[in-house]
Amino acid sequence: MTPALKLTLLLGAAALLACQPGGSENAKIEPSAPEQVETVQINPNVKILTDGALAGTQGYDIIESLTTEIGPRLAGTPEEARAREWGVAKMKDIGLSNVRIEPFTINGWERGVETGMIISPYPQKIYLTALGGSVATPSGGVEADVVYFPTFEDLKNAPEGGLDGKIAYISGRMEKAPDGAGYGPANQKRRSGATEAAKRGAVAVLIRSVGTDSHRFPHTGQMRYADDVKKIPIAALSAPDADQMDRMFAKDQDVRVKIELGPRAVGDRPSGNVVGEIVGSEKPDEIILIGGHLDSWDLGTGAVDDGAGIGISLGAAKVIIDSGLQPKRTIRVVMFGAEEVGLLGGFAYVEAHKGKDLANHILASESDFGAGKVYELRSGLKGGDAFIGELHSQIAALGIEKSTAQTNGGPDIGPMFDEGVPAIRLQQDGTDYFDLHHTPDDTMDKIDKDDVAQNVAAWTAMVWTASETDYDFRGMN
Amino acid sequence: MTPALKLTLLLGAAALLACQPGGSENAKIEPSAPEQVETVQINPNVKILTDGALAGTQGYDIIESLTTEIGPRLAGTPEEARAREWGVAKMKDIGLSNVRIEPFTINGWERGVETGMIISPYPQKIYLTALGGSVATPSGGVEADVVYFPTFEDLKNAPEGGLDGKIAYISGRMEKAPDGAGYGPANQKRRSGATEAAKRGAVAVLIRSVGTDSHRFPHTGQMRYADDVKKIPIAALSAPDADQMDRMFAKDQDVRVKIELGPRAVGDRPSGNVVGEIVGSEKPDEIILIGGHLDSWDLGTGAVDDGAGIGISLGAAKVIIDSGLQPKRTIRVVMFGAEEVGLLGGFAYVEAHKGKDLANHILASESDFGAGKVYELRSGLKGGDAFIGELHSQIAALGIEKSTAQTNGGPDIGPMFDEGVPAIRLQQDGTDYFDLHHTPDDTMDKIDKDDVAQNVAAWTAMVWTASETDYDFRGMN
Repeated sequence: MTPALKLTLLLGAAALLACQPGGSENAKIEPSAPEQVETVQINPNVKILTDGALAGTQGYDIIESLTTEIGPRLAGTPEEARAREWGVAKMKDIGLSNVRIEPFTINGWERGVETGMIISPYPQKIYLTALGGSVATPSGGVEADVVYFPTFEDLKNAPEGGLDGKIAYISGRMEKAPDGAGYGPANQKRRSGATEAAKRGAVAVLIRSVGTDSHRFPHTGQMRYADDVKKIPIAALSAPDADQMDRMFAKDQDVRVKIELGPRAVGDRPSGNVVGEIVGSEKPDEIILIGGHLDSWDLGTGAVDDGAGIGISLGAAKVIIDSGLQPKRTIRVVMFGAEEVGLLGGFAYVEAHKGKDLANHILASESDFGAGKVYELRSGLKGGDAFIGELHSQIAALGIEKSTAQTNGGPDIGPMFDEGVPAIRLQQDGTDYFDLHHTPDDTMDKIDKDDVAQNVAAWTAMVWTASETDYDFRGMN
Repeated sequence: MTPALKLTLLLGAAALLACQPGGSENAKIEPSAPEQVETVQINPNVKILTDGALAGTQGYDIIESLTTEIGPRLAGTPEEARAREWGVAKMKDIGLSNVRIEPFTINGWERGVETGMIISPYPQKIYLTALGGSVATPSGGVEADVVYFPTFEDLKNAPEGGLDGKIAYISGRMEKAPDGAGYGPANQKRRSGATEAAKRGAVAVLIRSVGTDSHRFPHTGQMRYADDVKKIPIAALSAPDADQMDRMFAKDQDVRVKIELGPRAVGDRPSGNVVGEIVGSEKPDEIILIGGHLDSWDLGTGAVDDGAGIGISLGAAKVIIDSGLQPKRTIRVVMFGAEEVGLLGGFAYVEAHKGKDLANHILASESDFGAGKVYELRSGLKGGDAFIGELHSQIAALGIEKSTAQTNGGPDIGPMFDEGVPAIRLQQDGTDYFDLHHTPDDTMDKIDKDDVAQNVAAWTAMVWTASETDYDFRGMN
């Protein structure tokens, strides 16, 4: 791309109507009607930033550093604490200001032994992992007959009491989709499978992993117990092991398994959000918040979830600082802690900032959907079409469409979004994200340099446009 | 394809010369000169058999049965013994005659605990597995500084004594190739890494797995100790963990790891070959041997290695029996035991049959390269071009080329090939075979029904052509 790139955007299918010839160097973008061709101007500073991002490896290098130097960083563990120290050092190294840890306390949980074995009809080992928050089996494990539920709905429709002394197995596949639309439906068994099975008398639960791969990796992830129901252990099987269960039940076999799970609640543990800023030159009190989450599950090294989000958001800040450009508004980068175990960093952030500067947050967004290319822009603004149009014109050249889908800005942004913080999201292609999500296989080799650079470029454009716009996000000006 | 399919084969690049119009219904195949077009006749019985194979799931069903009902079946274990019983039952069920186990004894080896941890500079868990035959570390593990060797050649070129008290890490990647040509070179570190490192004083060895994937699965596989060198433990790292090691050394870091490996030799253990036959109608003493190996490594369920070979060879026998056709020569199907730990079934077979019927084996072949489509025919015949041409004309329609590459017929055929048994091989596309090879991920979901059916079809054509041909393989007639 040339420095003074002029973009011809085709808006709608029946284009080539009402062509407006190229504007002047600083032409303002006209609100576009559908089915019009419009020539828009990339802001020269956006051009500098996106060029810098596309030519560099700012984001990739940060992901590599985090996964190599820290690796797994389960919420509340010493590894997450080391990651916070890493985050502070990295932010300072990049040149952010006001770098600090905002600590909070969580209920810690740690994984223990986990083994699984089909006892009959066909004895063989099964690969499984405890879901986050699960209680343990009795020491030595639990052995029981298995009752098969093709889907979580089938379990919910089962009568009470029918599972006394049994292990419930919930199958069901997750569908692939660029925006991960299959995750919510598939995830119900992970969140509520233990509760629904316990209501019916089960002693433990196995689920087919919530994932889209077919590798021998079980996918962990947080589960929840209802307050008034007995807590029973729950684990996920890898897809090939779930296939094995399905094959046995398809042959109408009686299946008996033995599993041992040793996870435990470990009481109060420290977590924290790592915060740093590029202080705005003209409106320093108006805050644009970007970030990812610093914690990961314990099985992998948290490259796509969410080393990528840390690298993309902090990488964008680095590109801005390295460019020498000074944003008018303050860019605040947050590495959220303890996201995986309940968005605890996002809630803690609101608790720490509510009644203080939270009302000054004019826009917030989190990158937490892997390292695939951004393909569309989603809005969580009330109104804000003018800003969305302004921003879209700056990122369309990166292959990003405008979407009508709404967003709350990402998992850790949700709590502040609910408090009125305007949100936006650069939706990534997550078609393969759930192949790796919450598995040991979430490692650095899965990160593509060019994809990360495209993300960083889009984030610089988003941040810069938001920092310079005349659009009044919250009626503050 | 129609029952009386006439195939127009394009032989060589500058074809369309010297065209011979279609022959009569039973036209004999003419020896073909290069750059000629020839019209050949598929033997009607071959047509029946290949059609039956392509329309069915005979091979696939056997692989599914073996992996589902038995699963992992490490040589010498009760699981391998169960697999032999399964094999006997399956052969009888299919209708083979003279079904028996030919037992032999091996030195057993079993896996124990295996853990790995980077101690410094960046503490995190590493995923590893002991190589087959490895000794254990001291109980509690061994912690030591690591010395990096980019390749096995670099280790071999290192001076003696330089590794006193160290752990040697041997990196180096395996290249993908349809015929697995990268395996031999990459495998040197697996076979001889412990010996070469021990000569130089090392206390343990880590290697980058011999494999072509980038998943968090270490690849096991047999290693060997030299008689006169101290035995030290050796384990393979998954590719992402090897990447982590490489990144640390690329940063010129001092790396220290702790590993604990608990494998042990367990003394004499039973193994055996499972043998069954379709007895020839005219020349029952002339034996065509086909098979695969029944044992697998302990980590996966042995679907591609070598459930596939069991399914393909036994599936071919089933197709022949189900067709009602009676081969002139005897078709002997062998499920070899203890292949993974040193081709022990292949050697035991020679020991059991030498001086008896081994001289009557007119052709032998093993399927042991996964479940990918057959793409070329390789010969291990002395002379035999006429038969190769005859056979190729019967399988070319399956997309199989003639190759000039030589073969010994497969791992378990090697020992009998060395005793003079003519061999042949239907070379499979193994481009992705080493993604799964010797890992936990070698499971049924990786098996493609259509690919297996193409294999079974090719094997029926091969077996039938060999059973009916006038070609005199060993000058017996």
